[in-house]
Amino acid sequence: MALVVEKTTTGREYKVKDMSQADFGRLEIELAEVEMPGLMSCRTEFGPSQPFKGARITGSLHMTIQTAVLIETLTALGAEVRWCSCNIFSTQDHAAAAIARDSAAVFAWKGETLQEYWWCTERALDWGPGGGPDLIVDDGGDATLLIHEGVKAEEEYEKTGKVPDPNSTDNAEFQIVLTIIRDGLKSDPKKYARMKERLVGVSEETTTGVKRLYQMQANGTLLFPAINVNDSVTKSKFDNLYGCRHSLPDGLMRATDVMIAGKVAVVAGYGDVGKGCAAALKQAGARVIVTEIDPICALQALMEGLQVLTLEDVVSEADIFVTTTGNKDIIMVDHMKKMKNNAIVCNIGHFDNEIDMLGLETYPGVKRITIKPQTDRWIFPETKSGIIVLAEGRLMNLGCATGHPSFVMSCSFTNQVIAQLELWNERKTGKYEKKVYVLPKHLDEKVAALHLGKLGANLTKLSKDQADYISVPVEGPYKPPHYRY
Amino acid sequence: MALVVEKTTTGREYKVKDMSQADFGRLEIELAEVEMPGLMSCRTEFGPSQPFKGARITGSLHMTIQTAVLIETLTALGAEVRWCSCNIFSTQDHAAAAIARDSAAVFAWKGETLQEYWWCTERALDWGPGGGPDLIVDDGGDATLLIHEGVKAEEEYEKTGKVPDPNSTDNAEFQIVLTIIRDGLKSDPKKYARMKERLVGVSEETTTGVKRLYQMQANGTLLFPAINVNDSVTKSKFDNLYGCRHSLPDGLMRATDVMIAGKVAVVAGYGDVGKGCAAALKQAGARVIVTEIDPICALQALMEGLQVLTLEDVVSEADIFVTTTGNKDIIMVDHMKKMKNNAIVCNIGHFDNEIDMLGLETYPGVKRITIKPQTDRWIFPETKSGIIVLAEGRLMNLGCATGHPSFVMSCSFTNQVIAQLELWNERKTGKYEKKVYVLPKHLDEKVAALHLGKLGANLTKLSKDQADYISVPVEGPYKPPHYRY
Amino acid sequence: MALVVEKTTTGREYKVKDMSQADFGRLEIELAEVEMPGLMSCRTEFGPSQPFKGARITGSLHMTIQTAVLIETLTALGAEVRWCSCNIFSTQDHAAAAIARDSAAVFAWKGETLQEYWWCTERALDWGPGGGPDLIVDDGGDATLLIHEGVKAEEEYEKTGKVPDPNSTDNAEFQIVLTIIRDGLKSDPKKYARMKERLVGVSEETTTGVKRLYQMQANGTLLFPAINVNDSVTKSKFDNLYGCRHSLPDGLMRATDVMIAGKVAVVAGYGDVGKGCAAALKQAGARVIVTEIDPICALQALMEGLQVLTLEDVVSEADIFVTTTGNKDIIMVDHMKKMKNNAIVCNIGHFDNEIDMLGLETYPGVKRITIKPQTDRWIFPETKSGIIVLAEGRLMNLGCATGHPSFVMSCSFTNQVIAQLELWNERKTGKYEKKVYVLPKHLDEKVAALHLGKLGANLTKLSKDQADYISVPVEGPYKPPHYRY
Amino acid sequence: MALVVEKTTTGREYKVKDMSQADFGRLEIELAEVEMPGLMSCRTEFGPSQPFKGARITGSLHMTIQTAVLIETLTALGAEVRWCSCNIFSTQDHAAAAIARDSAAVFAWKGETLQEYWWCTERALDWGPGGGPDLIVDDGGDATLLIHEGVKAEEEYEKTGKVPDPNSTDNAEFQIVLTIIRDGLKSDPKKYARMKERLVGVSEETTTGVKRLYQMQANGTLLFPAINVNDSVTKSKFDNLYGCRHSLPDGLMRATDVMIAGKVAVVAGYGDVGKGCAAALKQAGARVIVTEIDPICALQALMEGLQVLTLEDVVSEADIFVTTTGNKDIIMVDHMKKMKNNAIVCNIGHFDNEIDMLGLETYPGVKRITIKPQTDRWIFPETKSGIIVLAEGRLMNLGCATGHPSFVMSCSFTNQVIAQLELWNERKTGKYEKKVYVLPKHLDEKVAALHLGKLGANLTKLSKDQADYISVPVEGPYKPPHYRY
Repeated sequence: MALVVEKTTTGREYKVKDMSQADFGRLEIELAEVEMPGLMSCRTEFGPSQPFKGARITGSLHMTIQTAVLIETLTALGAEVRWCSCNIFSTQDHAAAAIARDSAAVFAWKGETLQEYWWCTERALDWGPGGGPDLIVDDGGDATLLIHEGVKAEEEYEKTGKVPDPNSTDNAEFQIVLTIIRDGLKSDPKKYARMKERLVGVSEETTTGVKRLYQMQANGTLLFPAINVNDSVTKSKFDNLYGCRHSLPDGLMRATDVMIAGKVAVVAGYGDVGKGCAAALKQAGARVIVTEIDPICALQALMEGLQVLTLEDVVSEADIFVTTTGNKDIIMVDHMKKMKNNAIVCNIGHFDNEIDMLGLETYPGVKRITIKPQTDRWIFPETKSGIIVLAEGRLMNLGCATGHPSFVMSCSFTNQVIAQLELWNERKTGKYEKKVYVLPKHLDEKVAALHLGKLGANLTKLSKDQADYISVPVEGPYKPPHYRY
Repeated sequence: MALVVEKTTTGREYKVKDMSQADFGRLEIELAEVEMPGLMSCRTEFGPSQPFKGARITGSLHMTIQTAVLIETLTALGAEVRWCSCNIFSTQDHAAAAIARDSAAVFAWKGETLQEYWWCTERALDWGPGGGPDLIVDDGGDATLLIHEGVKAEEEYEKTGKVPDPNSTDNAEFQIVLTIIRDGLKSDPKKYARMKERLVGVSEETTTGVKRLYQMQANGTLLFPAINVNDSVTKSKFDNLYGCRHSLPDGLMRATDVMIAGKVAVVAGYGDVGKGCAAALKQAGARVIVTEIDPICALQALMEGLQVLTLEDVVSEADIFVTTTGNKDIIMVDHMKKMKNNAIVCNIGHFDNEIDMLGLETYPGVKRITIKPQTDRWIFPETKSGIIVLAEGRLMNLGCATGHPSFVMSCSFTNQVIAQLELWNERKTGKYEKKVYVLPKHLDEKVAALHLGKLGANLTKLSKDQADYISVPVEGPYKPPHYRY
Repeated sequence: MALVVEKTTTGREYKVKDMSQADFGRLEIELAEVEMPGLMSCRTEFGPSQPFKGARITGSLHMTIQTAVLIETLTALGAEVRWCSCNIFSTQDHAAAAIARDSAAVFAWKGETLQEYWWCTERALDWGPGGGPDLIVDDGGDATLLIHEGVKAEEEYEKTGKVPDPNSTDNAEFQIVLTIIRDGLKSDPKKYARMKERLVGVSEETTTGVKRLYQMQANGTLLFPAINVNDSVTKSKFDNLYGCRHSLPDGLMRATDVMIAGKVAVVAGYGDVGKGCAAALKQAGARVIVTEIDPICALQALMEGLQVLTLEDVVSEADIFVTTTGNKDIIMVDHMKKMKNNAIVCNIGHFDNEIDMLGLETYPGVKRITIKPQTDRWIFPETKSGIIVLAEGRLMNLGCATGHPSFVMSCSFTNQVIAQLELWNERKTGKYEKKVYVLPKHLDEKVAALHLGKLGANLTKLSKDQADYISVPVEGPYKPPHYRY
Repeated sequence: MALVVEKTTTGREYKVKDMSQADFGRLEIELAEVEMPGLMSCRTEFGPSQPFKGARITGSLHMTIQTAVLIETLTALGAEVRWCSCNIFSTQDHAAAAIARDSAAVFAWKGETLQEYWWCTERALDWGPGGGPDLIVDDGGDATLLIHEGVKAEEEYEKTGKVPDPNSTDNAEFQIVLTIIRDGLKSDPKKYARMKERLVGVSEETTTGVKRLYQMQANGTLLFPAINVNDSVTKSKFDNLYGCRHSLPDGLMRATDVMIAGKVAVVAGYGDVGKGCAAALKQAGARVIVTEIDPICALQALMEGLQVLTLEDVVSEADIFVTTTGNKDIIMVDHMKKMKNNAIVCNIGHFDNEIDMLGLETYPGVKRITIKPQTDRWIFPETKSGIIVLAEGRLMNLGCATGHPSFVMSCSFTNQVIAQLELWNERKTGKYEKKVYVLPKHLDEKVAALHLGKLGANLTKLSKDQADYISVPVEGPYKPPHYRY
């Protein structure tokens, strides 16, 4: 696509695939609203007081239908919003179109190149001469990363006149980041500094993004307060677990139509995501084998009747391989060579480096046949045998299906809204320093409570006497901070 | 579409949506072949001897990728084939294109009108002046129905000169059937009689189609031998059960992206299809309520922890309604009016009359909003509340997803191939009269055996001593005919 | 125990372990009545008319609490009853005591020797000079066997003067049977002939017993009509499946307290019993491997995510072995030698010959340590490693626990009562010849219907129009005879 | 029983039910050792160095077979041990006999009165004139409570001469505690003070006991260091969850033989214990309804397809009620009156006050019929309808069955051993103050690792590069402290 910003009739900027899909997007947004009671309750509770009045929010988060409901919740509370996706395949183009037309500046489409991806991220952060956003909604930490790298480069440039050298890294994607920053330095050597000044904080919702934040906190390089939304119980124990339990088979079915029953499936990693994936595959009739490094998680898998082996033990007999680790180099090209014909390889954990895509792409003589977008068969020259790789090694539930369903995303996104409100409301009180925070338990419980009515639940009320007996307030929070659920 | 037969460069007739999808279809057919060991074994075992040499086979069966592998198995065994779909929404256009280009005469596309549907069925039966097919592969019995109705009309016409009157029935679809026959009578008053003469037999694979055959057998009106493939164990206890367990959530997800976990789902009917659906929904985290007329099936549902209630008991509190009964008038418009906003209503059992589509369409003031093809929101004027109907009340797994996965269809279709071989091989021996037959158990066991290797199973072998002890042959069959599995 | 018949104050004969447990038995019988709605409904429906007035019924069926409710249903309908157990370990002594004291002549205790077992069977058949019983309730067919062998011997004796020679067989148990018959011949050479004359018929409830009956029917040696209760759907698909799903873990836990989660369990056979066992073990967190001879059952296991291998493949890595085959020589001593230390070996299928108990007992140098009754550790001299055998290889759910729970036995036993009524009511009509019959489907459905109310189910009623559409009567039966459920 | 201490031939004190059961106990202990790899590994690793040389350990923890293996692990490491049970019904008499004969001073039997219970606790703490134990292994905190109350009373007595007044409390059990302390004060007014002096610390393994410790820490009244073993992941997420998943159905089956399939079961509380119970009941075929006060746990239940209602909503339609809350007054006598005939009521959570036993016992006209020990039917005068209460409202898995199985207890008890070692090894370093500590994560992971081999697992090893990528050491710990598993 030509990287040119377009404008709506009202003058709002955007860049999406096909504006004519806006009506379709709107219909699906309306369906999703019914499934997202937490977000809709926020609109009811906070909408009238317009708490985000004057706030500029930039989001870098899969531009799906569910995200559309999040965006329109933020705008319903008074915010101005610019958005990009945090994954090159995760945008739903009809969602992007509807939001671009109706609510916010969107720069996202399904199937971006990496170049396009970072252009979109830049656009989402570009609020014009007055500096960047007040708040960031982040997923994976790319918006946060760009600002931190930008500030670092500007400081170096100011001190030494040196600009970043893209060739200083092997990582193709990071080369692009450095290039963008280098090119920007020439025209405006204070852009990221101004952003940093303005920024009130970020809320981040992934395990990976949160890990980066804690590292920056530990290194003392974190530039603004951060709220770790990922570790809200109502996020990590719901979205990661139940979301993937839903979206893994969805992605497998849409991409390959393969029968899961009877198959041998390997799930690499048995954290929340792995637990959800293993449960889904087992329930669909697969025999599931787990690989783990952590003996506690391994013992949990065994207690559920799952076999725990190494990838090497089973690589040539399994039919489906799913990575969920949040680590890199899990399935290497040498593993892939040994797999059965048409073994399916996919990643639902983290970046595409869970799978050795580079090794695969550069394997001498390997042949790639695209069955359909996001479903490729790779044929090894020695065996003439092929494996099927989903979403080019990136998150298969977003690349091959539509991501997590609305209801569970309502939990995650209600945490995001509450975190953004908290950062914004406390922006002048000094409550939040340049550290990483989790939301207090009573807010976590509130998020859950907002989702019970839709499912017809009746909660039991503690008597004062009972509450005293277990030493909790009648209205909660009910558990100590270390409670694991 | 203009109903004009087209021709390939080799002169084979077809009518499909988009011939340019043939390459994509071919790639998916190749993937499916790996998942269909039963059919591929038939090619290996029978291909060399070309048993179908000279046989003309007409199929009326969902024109999917899996069916493509069936068709090419029939042609690999020497048959000439013409094909149509047995459902207006079930064709996968890329599959149809690949077959039309490479292997057989196909008349099918996704989203036919009823008019188009029956035109396609006529084309598939139209082998030119020499009469109709030698064999029919039927699904739901529409090809068989058309011939029986045609013969009946021709006999009446010959006797009395009377032609069928489409206005003699309220059923819109049957009006079309009668119209076709009436119009045909004028040009060729012996067409169906010639077909009947030539026909060796039919193999039928659905509960509904089989029921029609047994009724005709009981009435003495069955015109040719029929093999009931549906009641092979390797069909009804696999395709119906495990196929639906796979394809029901697939259809729900593709059509609505709704989170199944936490929802209340009603499954009407707890036969094999209902058992598969209930299992899938329960495993995905729904609370499942079953409606049943049969106390035995009801007691089975209870033993699995499912609640058994009437539709009236739960109509206003459930989120998802699935009909699986094989009967009609299960969910009426009066039920639909009482449902929650955005309740999902779908059918995976039988014809669209399981759901009162007519009542819905003609409800005064009702409004239909098409979210996307096969996903409609119907809004009642009194409540402004909408329900979501999938695939216009027709089979949702075929309308909203891609039907059953290859592996389980390989079981069903291997039964079809074996049944067709049996009919053809015995065409001159008089073994099969104008009755309905099931395949002998040793063939049923053979179908299963052909599917074990793919899943890595090792079968135990009976010793002669053990076989004698339980009075079975060492090589099977192992069970008495009444055994229920 | 001294084999002397005792008498109650009212003169009824019995032989039980401990009459002082009668009160305890009565309390548990009263609890069971609440769980056995089918039997209690029979009392309500048929009790007033006393249909069994004048009928003598002998039962050979595990003398448990549930059987006590069956016996008292038979007596409530007017029958006179004598009873023995059909397994040396299955009697619950408190149940036997309560029945002996209150309702019927009982000869049964937990832990009979084989000698005692057959003495009890003789007593149950011994109705004094007037011949034997009118009806037999059989489980496994031992009462039926004794009569058939008795008649054969008497006929031979009459013709040739030859008496049976116990040494003509290797089978220790059959030697006892022949001895009993031989000894009886001297005092009364017409005993079994008179029994045969009087006998109206037998109802049999096990797969094994039914197989024997069909063999006798095929051989033309069946001496009286038989109703195959086992193949009522409400028996084989409930008792065999759900009963074992309940009682297998119950037996394992009571006998060994072993944690099932995390273990590798081998289930030999995947019929109804095997399906129930595999489901229970999987749900409890074991990894289950199935062995099968039948490819159809094997494919069913695979569809449920179970691995299908041979015993040899896994004998040295599994923790729990369960036989469910109904065949013999499944786990041989050579297998047992290769097992892990403290592997558990048990049988829930059929006779103790599923496990090679003889091979184990006679293995040179093997050492048996009885942990507690029915739980033995057998230590092999070579490895000093032990395996744990439950219930001496006999049915472990009856030997180590209390058999199937009341509710599911109510289904089975209601079939027994209905079968007994049918035989008795038709005793003079000639309806039943010397053949094996199954109950008609409407009675099967009735049995199910009697059990729905207790579980709070509401059945849907078919309209006349719907019933016609699917060609069944409004009030059922709803399925064709070949339907598999 | 006469409360007189007995002595073995070697002079060790004890009081058990029946010393002749020691051999049986020993056999079961040997079986359990094979299932408890964590404890056996401790013997191998630490046994040679005799780290507990000179340490006196008092345990107050269910005197079962599994505990016997724990005790003998402590003695194998050099400790001298005295033991009592922490529940009046939980002792397995054969285990107590074997330990009393072979290894440690035991004061415990199944079915103690409350009076006897506290006498046993006193005996376990009574190490003669030299003061009390060095270390306490506690379960529920009763040993810790007695010392704290004793010290409090002694201090008051010293200051004011006042002795505790049993009538100052309504709680019958606490009256006994005060009486014991009061009576002891007269003979030795410094007993508990001396104990406190000597005590190095306590390790506690229950939610309830830990809560008491944190309260004392908060109040500043904790007299010695405490290690919270309950919140080791390998305890609370294993013992509480998988242990109860095993032992709840075990207790139900042994106590009532009731069929779980088809029943409606209410689980009060959806913490770890409740999750295990609900899973077990659902898998056994019950329909499970959860009651909860915490919206997060409620939402988890919903995601698993469980209904969340209040007790009032379902009290008259459920068949089985299980309390798991750790709170009091969950099922009151007014609830019990409304239950169905023979509804089963039991507690697996905490003390017997989860169920209103006092209200039941004192209900006017109520009648109690003991079916067998720990299984009582209570009949209300108004309805003549009875409910069945298990284990008199105390922990039903210990009262009616044998508690949790060895394997999962090995996880919990290995934590206990490690905690005891930690306290003892650091007794002079001042590492542990009068506070509550949890074990560091690497020890938690070690406990898990010790249990993998038995289940045949192969752990994957992290490369240095991967470890750096996710910022953990190659050898662990692998997760941040807040990780929830």
